[in-house]
Parts: sequence; C-alpha cells; structure tokens
Amino acid sequence: MASGKPASGEDSLIARYFRPLATDPGAFNLDDDAAGLKPNGDDIVVTTDAIIEGVHFLADDPPDTVARKALRVNLSDLAAKGATPAGFVLTLALRRADEGWLKPFAAALGEDAALFGCPLLGGDTVSTPGPLMISVTAFGRVPPGKMVHRSGAKPGERVMVTGTIGDATLGLAILKGGKIHAATDTAAREILVGRYRVPQPRLTLAEIVREYASASMDVSDGLAGDLTKLCGVSGVSAVIGLEQVPLSDAARGLVSRGIVGPETLIAGGDDYEILCTIPEGRVEAFEAAAQRAGVALSSIGTIVAGSSVPKFVGKEGKEIALERLSYSHF
Amino acid sequence: MASGKPASGEDSLIARYFRPLATDPGAFNLDDDAAGLKPNGDDIVVTTDAIIEGVHFLADDPPDTVARKALRVNLSDLAAKGATPAGFVLTLALRRADEGWLKPFAAALGEDAALFGCPLLGGDTVSTPGPLMISVTAFGRVPPGKMVHRSGAKPGERVMVTGTIGDATLGLAILKGGKIHAATDTAAREILVGRYRVPQPRLTLAEIVREYASASMDVSDGLAGDLTKLCGVSGVSAVIGLEQVPLSDAARGLVSRGIVGPETLIAGGDDYEILCTIPEGRVEAFEAAAQRAGVALSSIGTIVAGSSVPKFVGKEGKEIALERLSYSHF
Repeated sequence: MASGKPASGEDSLIARYFRPLATDPGAFNLDDDAAGLKPNGDDIVVTTDAIIEGVHFLADDPPDTVARKALRVNLSDLAAKGATPAGFVLTLALRRADEGWLKPFAAALGEDAALFGCPLLGGDTVSTPGPLMISVTAFGRVPPGKMVHRSGAKPGERVMVTGTIGDATLGLAILKGGKIHAATDTAAREILVGRYRVPQPRLTLAEIVREYASASMDVSDGLAGDLTKLCGVSGVSAVIGLEQVPLSDAARGLVSRGIVGPETLIAGGDDYEILCTIPEGRVEAFEAAAQRAGVALSSIGTIVAGSSVPKFVGKEGKEIALERLSYSHF
Repeated sequence: MASGKPASGEDSLIARYFRPLATDPGAFNLDDDAAGLKPNGDDIVVTTDAIIEGVHFLADDPPDTVARKALRVNLSDLAAKGATPAGFVLTLALRRADEGWLKPFAAALGEDAALFGCPLLGGDTVSTPGPLMISVTAFGRVPPGKMVHRSGAKPGERVMVTGTIGDATLGLAILKGGKIHAATDTAAREILVGRYRVPQPRLTLAEIVREYASASMDVSDGLAGDLTKLCGVSGVSAVIGLEQVPLSDAARGLVSRGIVGPETLIAGGDDYEILCTIPEGRVEAFEAAAQRAGVALSSIGTIVAGSSVPKFVGKEGKEIALERLSYSHF
C-alpha cells in the first residue's frame, strides 16, 4: 500500500482513503514498502483471514459491513488467543476503483481500527477480474509464552462459549430468502442479518481467556466442527448438552416452531464467539470476570477422555447425529 | 490454516500439503488459529503482496513458479528494507482443491521457504468462484530503528540498482505472443520468461543495504515510477542516464534492433531489483560489499534537489519523455 507522490490511480486512491487511517508510527504514513512493529518483550500473535465476495459476504452487502467483517474475523482470532491487538495489514483486490464503494469501506475500517485499538499498518491494493477479496493479517501481543492454544483441553474441564450460536447462519439464510426469511419478522431479520454481516470480536475477554482458559479458539466454521478440531488437537473428546448451547431469542423462536433444527445452528459458520475450556475449580472466577467484562458466557458441556468426535446430547440424554460438523471450503 | 483432526476437505488439504512446510515452532504445526513470532529485540518489518491469476501471473504459468513468485515478491521487499526474513503467512483462494496443482505449488513454496530461511507460519485457505489469488504477508527483522526507508535520499547521492531492468516485462510480452515473441530465440525467451515468472529477491544484499543505503525500495512497478515514488517521499528529484540502466543481453539485443525502446523497459513492472541511494563517499565500499555478496550493481544517476519527476537522459544528454512511468492497477 505504499505510495509516494500520487503518480497513478492506485496511489491517489491509497492517499485519499487509506492514509488517513495510517496514524500509527509503524505505518510510516503508507509511504514505504513495509510497516514496522516495535518489540516490547511480548510475543507477537499473527493471524490471517480473507473474505471473498460470494463466499464470505454477499455482493450487495453494504461496503461498511464488509470492511468491519474483514477486520473483525481477524480480531476474533486474536481475542480467542488471549492477545491484545497491535495492528493489521490489508490486501484489497478490486475490480475497479469505485469511490462510492471505497469511501464508506475505508471510513468503517478506520472506525473499527480505532474502536478496537488495531491500527492499519500497511497493505497492497490490486486489481482483479474476479470477486472482491479482502485479506487481513492482524497482529496481537501476549506476554512471552502466554498465547492460548487449541491444544490444552483436559478431561474434566468445562466447555464454555460466549454470546449466542447460530445467528449468523440464520442471517445468511434470510439474505438468501426462502423459509427462514418467510418465518421471521423485520426485527428478527435485522438482528440475525446484522450478526452475519458484522461479527462482535470478544476482545474485552482476551486477557480473561489468557488468565483462565486451558484451550481456546474462535467459532468461525460452526460450533460442532470447531469443537471437534479443539478436541482433536488436545487429544480429548467432549459431551455437550444441546439445550445448553446459547441461542438468541430469534433463533430459539425458530427452533421452537420447528423451522430449523438445533443441529443446523451448531454446524453453521460465522459465529465469531470464543469457545474455551476451563478447569472446574476456576469456572466460577472465570464467569465472574466475564460478567465484569460484560460478555455473556454459557457452560455447554464437559471435556472427556477419548478420541471420538464430541457428542451432542439432547433433552432426554439422547445423542444427536450430526450430518455435517461445519462449513468446509472444499 | 489451522486444522485439528482432519474433518473436512480443507483440513486434509492443509494437513497433506502445508503442514510439512510448517517446521518453525511459531507455526504450532498449523494446529492453531494463529502463529507466534518471538521477540529478540529487533524491530519486525511487515510486508504484504498478493498475486492474482490474470493480473500478476498467467493462468497457464506452472504452479511451482506461481508459488515462488508469491513468496519472492514479498522477500524482495524485505531485502530492500534491509531485513532478514523471519517467516510468512499465506492466504490461498482456490476455485477447487486440485491436487495436481497444489502438490507442486506446495513443494516449490517449501523449497523457497527453506532456501531463503523464511518459514511458513500459518494461513487461510478459502474457496473462490474467481481467479486464483495468493496473498502473502512476510516478516523480517532489523535492529531497532534500522529499517531502510524510501524517504532518506539526499541531493548529491548516487542512485544505484541491482541486476537488470526490463526483462520481466519482456518475458510477459513473450508469453502474450506478438512482436517480442517473434523477435526472440528460444534461449532469450527462456531467460526473459523466467525473469517474469520467478523473481530473484536480493536478500544477500539486505544487510549491506542496511549499512550503506540512505533510501531503498524494490522495483516492482517499473523503475521510472518507483524512482518517482522514492524521490517524492524523500522530497528530491533525480537525473538518470538511460544508457547506464543495466540491461540483460537479451533486452539489449531487442533495444539495439529497435524492437523495443528503453522507455518500455524502465516503465515495465516485475523487476524485483533493489533501487537505492548511496552517499557519494560510500559508493566504493558499497560496490565492494555487493561484489562480495555476488549481486550485480549499477550506478544509474544522481539525486538532485527539486520536486520534479526524475529526468531520464539519453545518449546526447537529451531528456526522454516517458508516456507512462509505471504499472498502475487502476
């Protein structure tokens, strides 16, 4: 995203829309080939996630929500790893320099960068004949060795999740029309679509996760599949109470009316909540800390020994068979 | 690029092709949401560049050259900044999981990562309905405050460039057929196409640039335009001798036969050479150090006071008018 004297369309575009965001000294005013991250003794946590038009967002999603989603899906990873944001770089692949799209995109990106304390450090703007693509690499800091991994879950520990699960997959279904759209009123649609378009990264929980969680990840591809990954890497299994999985009022209404099954919600993607495991003796203190941070938290099950796929158990203790665990790109 | 127990096509693809590359402890075996960069007191230099099918490489370019180009265009930035590679993250947007393409792609990426000491730390693999896209964010290290910027050039300093200029733009012209293809023999075509497909990052010069250069950048969008950017940010201008711009034998042959003009070569992109400015009293020592490092170096002109676009002067001291300075995406 370097640009000196505006000598081309690309450079003037960067100067106009992105330079105002590059307030961090490490961005070098976007006047260089590279950005700088100063050491402060902390480990640097690096995460990268791209969103693509037609895959991760829809062609008619508003540009401001696209910007927020691109940054927030990365901030969600940092939060789950217990990291404090330090900055991000952006790769933007555009079909054309459409200022009507770029202006609100950059404005919202700048707002979120300020809101979450994660400044734009640099980037690359390129043309593409294909769908819009926004790739973000975000950096966070943790004290040495303190990044929270997926691999630390142990039998007997509590499985906990923030917020509510399944709203984003319902929001996407509403945007595509069909039975979920028909079965929801305007207020519910607005909430669910908002959850699909603009995730809420749980950064206020980052330090608390670092203090209490034995393992943690963000739920991005579906709760069932992501828990399966966490268990696989930790060498454990889990038993989850389907009734304990937190649902929004809108989602609960659709389930109670039989419009969607809970298995659709726990296999749907785009939740961007934190899934973590907590040693039993520390659950109460973790819950209290989360409450002080203003983040809703639910206890959904227990880690058990074994290597099988986690069990999701319904009302009468009956195991629910899941046709698919999560979203996969291939 | 995290994957626990292979639960989907995406995960097994990552496990098969990319996990073998993730040998650095900071990659956490690609089993996590994020990678780690350990502090060692150095500043971290961050650069990001994406390459897109049909824009930065051609649909029928071999997968191994696409992998090398994706990484090397970023390594070239690190070299120009005086940084030693520390690792990279990769975002790969694919239409489908084509193993015949992925296998040689990943193998070549691993070879280059080992060759340049820049390990894969993590990434994201996503599907796209559009062109292939490979976005790399690479990290390097420099002693605190020692990153070489574009902004340090001062009047009286020498303008120097590594390697040869214009070969890659000729290579691209050959791949598109037409008069350059018709005017070259097989050997010349192979050299020029190779320069387009597989850049040579000048990493052996990184520490030397850090020691001697007042300003530096990599030439990626065309020598004329990139020098214009460097001068713009430094608040200076330059006078360049067109005859002193280093050309390969193949390029020189085409110029001498009138097939292409030198202005095409200095406005063409994809050179991935280092362009830097050196205080006059240090030029000799810089040249000697570059020679010991085995990197060809040419002195092409002088930084002068002023804010005009750099002048390119031909044989009889006549200024060459450039219709365009460089490649721009928009």
